[in-house]
Amino acid sequence: MYEGALQSLVDQLGHLPGVGPKSAQRMALYLLEAEPDEVSMLVEAINAVRTRVHHCEICANLTEENTCAICRDIRRDPTMICVVQEPKDIQAIEAARVFRGRYHVLGGAIDPMRGIGPEQLRIRELLTRLQDGQVTEIILATNPNIEGEATASYLARTLATIGVTTSRLAMGLPVGGDLEYADAVTLGRALEGRRHID
Amino acid sequence: MYEGALQSLVDQLGHLPGVGPKSAQRMALYLLEAEPDEVSMLVEAINAVRTRVHHCEICANLTEENTCAICRDIRRDPTMICVVQEPKDIQAIEAARVFRGRYHVLGGAIDPMRGIGPEQLRIRELLTRLQDGQVTEIILATNPNIEGEATASYLARTLATIGVTTSRLAMGLPVGGDLEYADAVTLGRALEGRRHID
Repeated sequence: MYEGALQSLVDQLGHLPGVGPKSAQRMALYLLEAEPDEVSMLVEAINAVRTRVHHCEICANLTEENTCAICRDIRRDPTMICVVQEPKDIQAIEAARVFRGRYHVLGGAIDPMRGIGPEQLRIRELLTRLQDGQVTEIILATNPNIEGEATASYLARTLATIGVTTSRLAMGLPVGGDLEYADAVTLGRALEGRRHID
Repeated sequence: MYEGALQSLVDQLGHLPGVGPKSAQRMALYLLEAEPDEVSMLVEAINAVRTRVHHCEICANLTEENTCAICRDIRRDPTMICVVQEPKDIQAIEAARVFRGRYHVLGGAIDPMRGIGPEQLRIRELLTRLQDGQVTEIILATNPNIEGEATASYLARTLATIGVTTSRLAMGLPVGGDLEYADAVTLGRALEGRRHID
């Protein structure tokens, strides 16, 4: 344990996600010895993010404008919406470079244990986006865990009444993975979802 | 990749030691959504460390006073000095709760490839501390790698001329480790340093 201010910084850094006591200590000592410019740039970056970044009015992605870069991009297919839990999921899907439609961020997943029901998610906003009939397909890209599955099921039932095509991301073996190390549930999904080779 | 301010913050956080692009992204998103209080406490902690923490006048440990808590503690044995490379090494040794003497931080190790020779380290300050003859033993606790070993050898030669007892931390198998996974050099040191059982 360090004295006073240094230990406070270690403690504060330890609140950051994925930062344990050892990494917090390394980061604090780095910040103590770093060039003044580097430290002020970090502090300014934190303040800039807090004042400038907010949620897109349409899809709730992160942006500094009223609407995000994807919603503003007229080359994106307006007939498809990919529904995700968090803005960071958009980054992950964009990195795959396969989807060219728009997104909708729910802001979480149904989780009764933590008091999160459908009304806490941005589902009403999604239904509003579907009112003009332009969207023909919704891809449910919530996480492949209990909460994400529950959310996808709920949305699938809700969307069925509107008559829009709904799909779910495929589950199966991760590419580059080893069959031997796949867990039983994933392997079960990979078998269920097997595709015929033409 | 995010837009503007958020990506800047991800980049800045990525400069911290041990923080890769994925962790930097997680930390940036956390800071974006965190409570205002938590963010301001982090920023204040960074600023407080930069203004308040400096090196102890005697041993160069980190402190907010002129001298560090260990140098001020009259219960610590003034006849022993443990020489370390960095202040964080003091924390590691203190955690072992075995050493009750004082410390001396060199501020690095001899590393000709990076232009660090004995004159760049706090060796002159160490020799000054030995002048009154109160210190009778020096423990060389530099890192068990090439630079640390070179520094320990240099110090051992220098201190031999003064007539103070000099020792080096034992090298051998880490406690709780598996013999099978020990590297050959460590195993060699463990054999060389073997102790007879009475």
